[in-house]
Amino acid sequence: MSALFGSCIIGQSGGPSAVINASVYGSIRAALDSGCITKIYGAANGIKGVLEDRLYVLDEENAVELERLKYTPSSALGSCRYKISDPSVDDTDYKRILEIFKKYNVRYFFYNGGNDSMDTCNKISKYMAESGYDCRVMGIPKTIDNDLCLTDHCPGFGSAAKYIATSFMEVYLDAHVYDVGMVTVVECMGRHAGWLTAASALASEMGQGPDLIYLAERVFDRDRFLADVCRVYKEKGKCMVAVSEGIQYEDGNFVSMAELSETDGFGNAQLGGLAAILARMIKEKTDAKVRSVEFSLLQRCAAHVASLIDIEESFLAGKTAVIAAVSGVTDMMVGFECDRNDGYSCATKLIKLEDVANREKKVPDEWINAEGNGILGPYIDYAMPLIQGETKLDKENGLPRFAKLKKIQAK
Amino acid sequence: MSALFGSCIIGQSGGPSAVINASVYGSIRAALDSGCITKIYGAANGIKGVLEDRLYVLDEENAVELERLKYTPSSALGSCRYKISDPSVDDTDYKRILEIFKKYNVRYFFYNGGNDSMDTCNKISKYMAESGYDCRVMGIPKTIDNDLCLTDHCPGFGSAAKYIATSFMEVYLDAHVYDVGMVTVVECMGRHAGWLTAASALASEMGQGPDLIYLAERVFDRDRFLADVCRVYKEKGKCMVAVSEGIQYEDGNFVSMAELSETDGFGNAQLGGLAAILARMIKEKTDAKVRSVEFSLLQRCAAHVASLIDIEESFLAGKTAVIAAVSGVTDMMVGFECDRNDGYSCATKLIKLEDVANREKKVPDEWINAEGNGILGPYIDYAMPLIQGETKLDKENGLPRFAKLKKIQAK
Repeated sequence: MSALFGSCIIGQSGGPSAVINASVYGSIRAALDSGCITKIYGAANGIKGVLEDRLYVLDEENAVELERLKYTPSSALGSCRYKISDPSVDDTDYKRILEIFKKYNVRYFFYNGGNDSMDTCNKISKYMAESGYDCRVMGIPKTIDNDLCLTDHCPGFGSAAKYIATSFMEVYLDAHVYDVGMVTVVECMGRHAGWLTAASALASEMGQGPDLIYLAERVFDRDRFLADVCRVYKEKGKCMVAVSEGIQYEDGNFVSMAELSETDGFGNAQLGGLAAILARMIKEKTDAKVRSVEFSLLQRCAAHVASLIDIEESFLAGKTAVIAAVSGVTDMMVGFECDRNDGYSCATKLIKLEDVANREKKVPDEWINAEGNGILGPYIDYAMPLIQGETKLDKENGLPRFAKLKKIQAK
Repeated sequence: MSALFGSCIIGQSGGPSAVINASVYGSIRAALDSGCITKIYGAANGIKGVLEDRLYVLDEENAVELERLKYTPSSALGSCRYKISDPSVDDTDYKRILEIFKKYNVRYFFYNGGNDSMDTCNKISKYMAESGYDCRVMGIPKTIDNDLCLTDHCPGFGSAAKYIATSFMEVYLDAHVYDVGMVTVVECMGRHAGWLTAASALASEMGQGPDLIYLAERVFDRDRFLADVCRVYKEKGKCMVAVSEGIQYEDGNFVSMAELSETDGFGNAQLGGLAAILARMIKEKTDAKVRSVEFSLLQRCAAHVASLIDIEESFLAGKTAVIAAVSGVTDMMVGFECDRNDGYSCATKLIKLEDVANREKKVPDEWINAEGNGILGPYIDYAMPLIQGETKLDKENGLPRFAKLKKIQAK
């Protein structure tokens, strides 16, 4: 295939992570080296920025600041949660995207995100192909939730897992200093998949982690949960619990929502606050001091404790998408194929966008114990390599020196 | 003064910190080098361990593990919140302590803690002197709250401040990725003093911190608070707020308690949950998406992001207490005297235990802005040197390798 000359747009979408900008930097580096990408635009707030003609000229940024993107958390270009319609129902957005692509002679579109973003990417890719507009569209995975299909794991997961395991070890020590009964409930992100919550088992592997772990993959049984906690507490005088925000009762209701509407009905449709709810349940059943901790936003933005493996792989994913596109590939997402038999190695692969869009990967059932309150060895073997190595983040005044972009608007 | 031969007890008390064990390690090192301390005991769970004859033989621990104490958070010996009675009212505890001291020929007692611990230390010191039992008693300061008097600052504060400033920067970036209205309320520890909450201003100094900061030192006015938030939100479309858990209304009631009893009355006497309460107030007044984050236990145990200055100073405090005691000093707490005129330097000094016990140091009023919603330059100049440098914590499997003590019980 002959070289396709033109500009590219890089966009970020969905919830941010500690390493999503490492992917953007990988794409920028590869685009600068491509020989045929003539201009590098960043979409402000993902696809919304394309629709609203808000593009940043990334090749005019300072090189040192761009390099700092590798260690800067959250979406430096801005993100969105915009759901693009089906083009057969309403093609307004697509026409507008095509118009913008033509305006800036965009021949490469790179979209960095999770399930929903891959759906957006897939739809745009198909529309461009049908329109006969020559543009290569590539997805770059990102999600701390680690729930994208057909890839060994997702960029962003390793760093969030490292934050969770590290923080669990620290909270474990904190929760064990007094010789009084103490139960600690820690809530981790994950609405439908328990990958992140399971990372607490890495702390247990180090001898300083939770006694009980409940993932969103298994039905949550209130009585069994309380019996578990009481048993461990009786044995040890302490109990530490890790729980996915998305645990559900057998009827499919989120525990957080069901219990809230039962008690005070803040009526707030967001998840969260689950740890406090479970802590209250436990308090009614034991004489223990019960504490609840919610890692909240910290688990997805804690770049200061990001995994170097995750940073490098995220960079690689961004770079690979550009190199593949320049070589003629389109309509694919970059994925990882890993070998853990003799150490750990990771290679990129390409997956059809339509095969990953809107699908979710759960923690395999056989990686969860029979009782549904613990994580088994295969998960440890899977996740441990992904949290290795420390960030090389610059410090200034003892604090992180994150990238500061000029964000020059394209005309 | 001639050398006093005998054993020592080191105890830890009150809430743990990221560096309290660095002080214990400093004391152990100095005791090993003292030439007259014949045996080093650690009190299990502070003064409770002394009363219950639960002592660990620290000189039989592995040297490498002991050195790891420098980078291990929480009280490795265990802590307590035991309030010792006034000896003139009830001297049972004191008689028992003297009995244990005699049993183990304890001639040195080092107690590592905050306000209450210095009170315990002071009472024991006075009792031993009155009893004519030759024992040197020294306090080693520790509190993330930074509220001990007569010392420039307290070991533990710098690391907690570094965690808070770092996390604020990361949450700031996370809270600014979407082009939709967003208010984020972050709650920091501090019941009576706002030293920790004010550390969020270090993040603002880096351009990635809160817009509004409310300390426990100033009366909290709900209407003014909501007006502040709405004003910033209107201007910027975002607003980030830092707030001390201990903010109070004019009538002296904690905001967290007052609002809880008004709404759902969980009746839980612990503070916390304040951020969620304020978030709800803001939600009623704006169309913004409002998020609440509570740093919770993490701010006092996050050793992975501890300040090296804080670690070294904590070590120095523990060491100095022993060296002073061996040279004949008793009844004192180690404090810091710092010079920030030409760089930063810190020297130890000795302060009478009775002068620090039960007293609290607040953030100076002139370091808070007139509106009571921001922090001024002098605080930045004060706190910035205390968060410098990175921990040298060993890693294993990409996770912290904290000290593991054998904890051999003394017979």
